Amino acid sequence: MTIIYQYRVATTSFVGFLKLLAAWRGSVYKLLFKESLVFMGVYAAISLTYRFALNDQQKLQFERVAIHCNSYTSLIPVSFVLGFYVTVVVQRWWQQFRNVPWPDRTIFVMCTYLSGQEERARIMRRTVARYMMFGMILIMRAVSVAVMKRFPTLDHIVEAGFITKDEAEIYEKTECQYLKFWVPLMWASNVLTRARQEGRIETEFGLRMVIEQLADFRDKCSLCFVYDWITIPLVYTQVVTLAVYSFFAACLVGRQFLDTEKNYPGYEYDIYVPVFTLLQFFFYMGWLKVAEQMINPFGEDDDDYDINWLMDRHTAVAFALVDQCCGRHPPLIRDQHWD
Amino acid sequence: MTIIYQYRVATTSFVGFLKLLAAWRGSVYKLLFKESLVFMGVYAAISLTYRFALNDQQKLQFERVAIHCNSYTSLIPVSFVLGFYVTVVVQRWWQQFRNVPWPDRTIFVMCTYLSGQEERARIMRRTVARYMMFGMILIMRAVSVAVMKRFPTLDHIVEAGFITKDEAEIYEKTECQYLKFWVPLMWASNVLTRARQEGRIETEFGLRMVIEQLADFRDKCSLCFVYDWITIPLVYTQVVTLAVYSFFAACLVGRQFLDTEKNYPGYEYDIYVPVFTLLQFFFYMGWLKVAEQMINPFGEDDDDYDINWLMDRHTAVAFALVDQCCGRHPPLIRDQHWD
Amino acid sequence: MTIIYQYRVATTSFVGFLKLLAAWRGSVYKLLFKESLVFMGVYAAISLTYRFALNDQQKLQFERVAIHCNSYTSLIPVSFVLGFYVTVVVQRWWQQFRNVPWPDRTIFVMCTYLSGQEERARIMRRTVARYMMFGMILIMRAVSVAVMKRFPTLDHIVEAGFITKDEAEIYEKTECQYLKFWVPLMWASNVLTRARQEGRIETEFGLRMVIEQLADFRDKCSLCFVYDWITIPLVYTQVVTLAVYSFFAACLVGRQFLDTEKNYPGYEYDIYVPVFTLLQFFFYMGWLKVAEQMINPFGEDDDDYDINWLMDRHTAVAFALVDQCCGRHPPLIRDQHWD
Amino acid sequence: MTIIYQYRVATTSFVGFLKLLAAWRGSVYKLLFKESLVFMGVYAAISLTYRFALNDQQKLQFERVAIHCNSYTSLIPVSFVLGFYVTVVVQRWWQQFRNVPWPDRTIFVMCTYLSGQEERARIMRRTVARYMMFGMILIMRAVSVAVMKRFPTLDHIVEAGFITKDEAEIYEKTECQYLKFWVPLMWASNVLTRARQEGRIETEFGLRMVIEQLADFRDKCSLCFVYDWITIPLVYTQVVTLAVYSFFAACLVGRQFLDTEKNYPGYEYDIYVPVFTLLQFFFYMGWLKVAEQMINPFGEDDDDYDINWLMDRHTAVAFALVDQCCGRHPPLIRDQHWD
Amino acid sequence: MTIIYQYRVATTSFVGFLKLLAAWRGSVYKLLFKESLVFMGVYAAISLTYRFALNDQQKLQFERVAIHCNSYTSLIPVSFVLGFYVTVVVQRWWQQFRNVPWPDRTIFVMCTYLSGQEERARIMRRTVARYMMFGMILIMRAVSVAVMKRFPTLDHIVEAGFITKDEAEIYEKTECQYLKFWVPLMWASNVLTRARQEGRIETEFGLRMVIEQLADFRDKCSLCFVYDWITIPLVYTQVVTLAVYSFFAACLVGRQFLDTEKNYPGYEYDIYVPVFTLLQFFFYMGWLKVAEQMINPFGEDDDDYDINWLMDRHTAVAFALVDQCCGRHPPLIRDQHWD
Repeated sequence: MTIIYQYRVATTSFVGFLKLLAAWRGSVYKLLFKESLVFMGVYAAISLTYRFALNDQQKLQFERVAIHCNSYTSLIPVSFVLGFYVTVVVQRWWQQFRNVPWPDRTIFVMCTYLSGQEERARIMRRTVARYMMFGMILIMRAVSVAVMKRFPTLDHIVEAGFITKDEAEIYEKTECQYLKFWVPLMWASNVLTRARQEGRIETEFGLRMVIEQLADFRDKCSLCFVYDWITIPLVYTQVVTLAVYSFFAACLVGRQFLDTEKNYPGYEYDIYVPVFTLLQFFFYMGWLKVAEQMINPFGEDDDDYDINWLMDRHTAVAFALVDQCCGRHPPLIRDQHWD
Repeated sequence: MTIIYQYRVATTSFVGFLKLLAAWRGSVYKLLFKESLVFMGVYAAISLTYRFALNDQQKLQFERVAIHCNSYTSLIPVSFVLGFYVTVVVQRWWQQFRNVPWPDRTIFVMCTYLSGQEERARIMRRTVARYMMFGMILIMRAVSVAVMKRFPTLDHIVEAGFITKDEAEIYEKTECQYLKFWVPLMWASNVLTRARQEGRIETEFGLRMVIEQLADFRDKCSLCFVYDWITIPLVYTQVVTLAVYSFFAACLVGRQFLDTEKNYPGYEYDIYVPVFTLLQFFFYMGWLKVAEQMINPFGEDDDDYDINWLMDRHTAVAFALVDQCCGRHPPLIRDQHWD
Repeated sequence: MTIIYQYRVATTSFVGFLKLLAAWRGSVYKLLFKESLVFMGVYAAISLTYRFALNDQQKLQFERVAIHCNSYTSLIPVSFVLGFYVTVVVQRWWQQFRNVPWPDRTIFVMCTYLSGQEERARIMRRTVARYMMFGMILIMRAVSVAVMKRFPTLDHIVEAGFITKDEAEIYEKTECQYLKFWVPLMWASNVLTRARQEGRIETEFGLRMVIEQLADFRDKCSLCFVYDWITIPLVYTQVVTLAVYSFFAACLVGRQFLDTEKNYPGYEYDIYVPVFTLLQFFFYMGWLKVAEQMINPFGEDDDDYDINWLMDRHTAVAFALVDQCCGRHPPLIRDQHWD
Repeated sequence: MTIIYQYRVATTSFVGFLKLLAAWRGSVYKLLFKESLVFMGVYAAISLTYRFALNDQQKLQFERVAIHCNSYTSLIPVSFVLGFYVTVVVQRWWQQFRNVPWPDRTIFVMCTYLSGQEERARIMRRTVARYMMFGMILIMRAVSVAVMKRFPTLDHIVEAGFITKDEAEIYEKTECQYLKFWVPLMWASNVLTRARQEGRIETEFGLRMVIEQLADFRDKCSLCFVYDWITIPLVYTQVVTLAVYSFFAACLVGRQFLDTEKNYPGYEYDIYVPVFTLLQFFFYMGWLKVAEQMINPFGEDDDDYDINWLMDRHTAVAFALVDQCCGRHPPLIRDQHWD
Repeated sequence: MTIIYQYRVATTSFVGFLKLLAAWRGSVYKLLFKESLVFMGVYAAISLTYRFALNDQQKLQFERVAIHCNSYTSLIPVSFVLGFYVTVVVQRWWQQFRNVPWPDRTIFVMCTYLSGQEERARIMRRTVARYMMFGMILIMRAVSVAVMKRFPTLDHIVEAGFITKDEAEIYEKTECQYLKFWVPLMWASNVLTRARQEGRIETEFGLRMVIEQLADFRDKCSLCFVYDWITIPLVYTQVVTLAVYSFFAACLVGRQFLDTEKNYPGYEYDIYVPVFTLLQFFFYMGWLKVAEQMINPFGEDDDDYDINWLMDRHTAVAFALVDQCCGRHPPLIRDQHWD
């Protein structure tokens, strides 16, 4: 689930963002836990080898390699590359969320125009709501691992009550080798046309408005699929990964503390623990993790969209609108400030 | 409340923006008041310790650490990271404001099509306006600390006259465990359908246009919630914070004035007060504060949106439109430039 | 008024943009005239003091400060900060202009559907056009200094013929403590409804389309106000200003030509006039002036939007459409290429 | 076809993106295979010549040139240029994909309003679908090499069953020297008008909605053509290419390992294989390849849009909607959660 | 005309973009031909003067100036400034193109609803098409030098057959001192209203849709004018130009090869031709040329929009739609895949 932290920084205050550094869930520490242990382990191993295992001749050679490596670390503008790459990823990530379909507007308009209290009207409203949720589940299964786990087969969807057995069968009979999320949406559209023919939607205006919203919902579903199909090209991601990982590979050797007596420039002091290299590690690797987390927001990270929660919410709200709010309003009276 | 300063720089003039540096409310000084005191205090403490408390051996060690720290400060491109991060935050901040719902357009269209002067028409208009404001308050309570403080319970909203006791009760009876801001908007929609049935809205066109606007208003409310739910991932904020704070932690030690007699390169002179380090502090920390202030614009900062003011304005304008402007216009006469 | 220079560079040519450096109106020279004089004056004063007024001991101290200052100038990435800040300002500036209301589309559609030649129809059209201009003036007065100067009171608007005395009175009677730009737009809407009732607009379609456009016009007015209300946070502007001004303050001392005999690195030569520091001044200060000019485009700069011109244009075009083009077209005949 | 890798990084995990470096299809290695071989070959040749073929005098001269070249490599901010350029290319690339026409929405709305089960209605629906696909093929042939290869002539389109021979003839008879993709779309529009006249589309609302969607489809087709017509100016691409290639040309000489005995600064060690220069090569050249791949996404790269696949999908989905889903829905019954 | 090169790089291939460096039309070489000659000439002149004309004392002074100049070249981050500036220009350039009006959609919808085969209907369609093109020409004349050259007076437009003499006269009689491109569009709108009155457009829906599209077309025309009126502020362009030109002015002196015997750091070798400075020249100046070319895309550069071609295309397509496709479609038959 998304980590919500903005209330902790709602008002700028003393040390402000600093407080956020103490968070664990979804934090840079948690994400980099293993990587940093490995990095520190390898660093220590190299350090110990250099200090105790190598003879003088080998030390000299190691020192040369170390200095060479260190000079490389300044050649790759890791921050620059990450800056541009992450900006692209962030924009995509947000657009992707904006395109997650919400059934609210369609249901809202449907309740306005198909507001009869008789059973058949209610069945129609519920059916349309169910079909919309079914369409959304079909798309989300293709996109999100978490949803696929929840509804691995049609039977699970039937069990959850989104469709009946018969509907599942009719759905499966539709022949098309591609993802068929539009089938239940077409049904929903046909149910609405029927509602118009039976006069339950009183005007063409009403039908048109609901169909329009339904088509928008379908478009959003479609866009979810498109965003999933076309990602940031692999090469771009590889290039950035290559830069960051080769930077830290070079650091493992180049940032060792060399024999201070040899007085290599930049290696004058030995403080044993490379504090600042570790900070750089958390900083640059953390930045890369931002991209990693956002490139597929439908995963199961601490900070990924909680699509299952969202679908529960959609279901609850859709049925509350359809059953409890439809065609009713409190009595019309003069309000408190009438004059 | 937002700080309005653009009139002071409406026309570019001698020293232009320089004048803005003299502002206090919402200024970088006010925001960084405490932080800079702490920073200066710690800096002074370290300086005094180094100058008077340490023996020669300790001084030497301190100097090494200082030089090591200083070299680190050039390794992290703080400006770069802040540049990219703040750009993302600024874009989000503005989009967020653009999505704050304004009832004006809906009310404007409603007054055009539901323009009767009889009491029932007026009650209907007022009711729709009240329900819209109620929906907005419900959303804003979830998003803004200031609004939550103003309307901590439904009773406060009843007291303020936005809804009646009965309406509050009906609202509470609607069963749904999620935020129910759409309930009053559904009521509003039903009131409008009733107005059409009673012929007070004369045409289907009219009803459709108002419903459309109402649905847009609902969408904006929904978006407010989404922006609040999905924030910039915690990792990104942490990474930036880590970079800036570790930069200044390193400065505390690395930017000390070392014994000039030892002639360390870059430490040739001792001017006691690290003027430029302080400027950097105001500059980089200020930049981070920009992000801190904008990441949750619904807080109570000097420069946050004043949602309470906005809601007063919305209420006043909505009722002025509904009561005073509806269906009236000055007599139609030839104007001054007729020929 | 905006400086139009694109025709001078319509086609890339030898020296191309170089020609633009010769412009004066709206130029970086004109904008920085005073600042650069002050900068040069202070620089010269310091230079003279150093060369002639200080004794050897003082000179030594000054030189230390100078070298310290100079090293600072490389610490602040002014170009970076300005790059990000100006990008944000430019985007805002252009969006702001895109949201300046244009009555053309509303009038265009109104003339299509309310095209009668009889006097009452013409009065209606003129009235709607007048009310739209009145609404726009009300908003623009709140936003632009130049418009406020032109129409300081309602009487000036009456005098200019946009409204009659009676209308001004009715406007003032509307009770609402907030900006009431929507009052005349509501009137316009009511006039149009009346036109429909009298059958002068023949169909509901027509009325709906005009009302829709009018509501869009109202939205744009509203957005103008919003852009004026919510500006780029003061802190951001302050941070950037602080960076640039402290950079040049440091330059005043650090870029002095020191005694070449002392052979300070980077101070080997004395060429008396700091040509490149001045170029940097024009360059960085000019960049800041870009932001200063664009942050409030409704001021009276050479390069600000000429809102008064725009309003004259709108008035002229609106009335030309309403009076001269309405309901008329040349006779329908076969054209030249008929076969 | 697009490389889909987001599932492999759905959840941030240990080493995360590192796994992606092992991919081959669409990878930076595959793309740079030949270039890197050439680069290494030339580097080795120069190295061997320097080490074994040159005499002392020549070596000295070579060393001068090498040092000069190396200093140049730090003058061109390749990463900067690539960062800005690639950002522009990425934005364009995504917009371009967003504008690839999808017939789904039009077909969806058509099926809602033209839902008769009689043969003529079905023929009409199929005909509209065929004409839309035909229009899309016409545009795509002009834009994509792969589609042109699949349908080099009209006969191939006839053969694939998108149009009949007669239709192909009528299409060819339309006189217009420009791309005529709008001809079949105009036919589709006329078929729909006919359907309205015959009463198969029951209301004007229905016709209007379908025509609107069809016009949007036409716009997208048109935009595809525009994106293809107006590309990023050649100069920009040339400038970036020039920077990157001249950078590596300079590297070929400047990054050689010079005689370590001469102790040139920066050339102290000889490790024979320029590991880091090669990493830079993969990194910068890879970044340029990102641009190369995205500047024309309709090519036949591993990571280009698979337009042929998309068209198969469109055809299958369009006909499935038109034939199998039209006007039908499962029986309306009470669902599982009815009470 | 735009240079189309994307097919040459449709598929990433060995050396890929390198091939583009061989292009001449629209290339960086062609654009910088003269400038680079001047640059090289001045460079050579200074070089010869230094080598042969100056005495030792003068040489010494020149060398000082040269070293001073060279140090300046590293002070101005030309790449940075250009990166931000060009990004703004590119965005504007593309938006500007997106807003060039295309009559296709309006004509497409008109042909759907005004599809009669009788002469008067055809005259009406042709007339609307002509008026739209006339409006577009009026706007384009104001914006593009090329169009102004083609149609310097109304008579030229009459001659080209877009309007008749009478229409030109009526146009001129309309009193308005501002650009009157909306006059013919208003006529077009009135012709359509007449078509509705005569029943040639059968429904209000039809009229409304066409009018809507026509209003969009008018908006685009209007936007073309706005983009032309409000450009990137002169100061910004000046600042960038100043940076680039002063950079190369400093290079002319600072990048000379100084007497190698004096051993100035960075001037150790004399290779006579400043290859890398020239590469920088092509690179940075080329980048500035990108901006120069894009800031007014309606000029006559190799890579500017070919508006005249576009207008020919619009005319041909508009009349082909209006005359040949209107109201006709191939006979409706079962297609190849019927079962």
